[in-house]
Amino acid sequence: MATGHIPEATVARLPVYLRSLTELAAAGDATTSSDVLAERAGVNPAKVRKDLSYLGTHGTRGVGYDVRHLTFEVSRALGVANTWPVVVCGLGNLGRALAKHTGFTERGFPVVAAVDIDPAITGTTVDDVPVHSPDQIAELVAAHGVAIGVIATPGNAAQETADLLVAAGVRSILDFSSTVVTVPDHVEVRTVDLSTELQILGFHLHQDLPPEVGKTP
Amino acid sequence: MATGHIPEATVARLPVYLRSLTELAAAGDATTSSDVLAERAGVNPAKVRKDLSYLGTHGTRGVGYDVRHLTFEVSRALGVANTWPVVVCGLGNLGRALAKHTGFTERGFPVVAAVDIDPAITGTTVDDVPVHSPDQIAELVAAHGVAIGVIATPGNAAQETADLLVAAGVRSILDFSSTVVTVPDHVEVRTVDLSTELQILGFHLHQDLPPEVGKTP
Repeated sequence: MATGHIPEATVARLPVYLRSLTELAAAGDATTSSDVLAERAGVNPAKVRKDLSYLGTHGTRGVGYDVRHLTFEVSRALGVANTWPVVVCGLGNLGRALAKHTGFTERGFPVVAAVDIDPAITGTTVDDVPVHSPDQIAELVAAHGVAIGVIATPGNAAQETADLLVAAGVRSILDFSSTVVTVPDHVEVRTVDLSTELQILGFHLHQDLPPEVGKTP
Repeated sequence: MATGHIPEATVARLPVYLRSLTELAAAGDATTSSDVLAERAGVNPAKVRKDLSYLGTHGTRGVGYDVRHLTFEVSRALGVANTWPVVVCGLGNLGRALAKHTGFTERGFPVVAAVDIDPAITGTTVDDVPVHSPDQIAELVAAHGVAIGVIATPGNAAQETADLLVAAGVRSILDFSSTVVTVPDHVEVRTVDLSTELQILGFHLHQDLPPEVGKTP
């Protein structure tokens, strides 16, 4: 069955369900419930049932969901059987961590190349990932069928890097640069700003302070 | 004005608005509009206006928002004037990148210490951040007033690390371990799974494939 339109918020939860299902299978569970999946995903059970209904999957009352079947359905929706080669742009601390992140390859996102402007490291490898100069992006994308560009450059190089990726035909960008990059409509950008997550935690800490402490000048 | 209840989705966008406002101020803009902020945040202008109304801030028709005033209001809501010390747990590639991430300190989240189980690195420093053993977490939290624990350990050490943080009194955890950790209700956990972001991009790439290619066995 081809999946119909799936809401963006549901898509964002599918990887979480898939991870939970993998853990449940590893623990020997043959069936599970929307309650279990809900707790692990941090949503309510009704939302889980709604999310999974978009995949055409409905649990059996009193039995729940078959773990193997559901794993298959979620994997299929996510296109897990496919492999999407990744290029990491910018090899500072974060870029190196991303280039070496084994979880990417395990889930179908092999890092096939990295680029950096530092001539001292182009031509070397980082954990078997070859490092090239940014002016080779188009060549790398063509040679490896790169599907996703990861931007881990300083903020002031992010737009230029995005432009090179887009010009090379990359349609999906994961941006860690803490800046907003502008791309054509056919390109999807997801932004991961590590400070944003801390600021959200900070907001809640701030709200919990007694009023006289929480007041800012 | 004390902020009333602000929806979680709005809270998540406040750091994005704050970043945009900082950039606009740096570019010399005295006023801005919900259109400009919306484009940078990737939402529609009505949502921006609604979000900002929770802060008690309304733009002036035909003029827009005063950049300085709005920066002040968003900062105040986020508690940006406060400083929330952070401990990074696990110094693999990602942990090292996080411990060295200058953006954290700049935004009020100084990394005051790191912990790792490797006795070869405890007692050393990573970019001036002292590295301790995990059994010192309680001591570190008390000594530095640690507000946020960052988990960058392998998945199989994440729960144990979370338990140590919670026992030490930490109420906010940012989890990069790709596992779901269980904590008491009074503790907030935000999960950043780098592979999840790639899987969401992969979903859209998958949807764009011609049906015969997109089919999975």
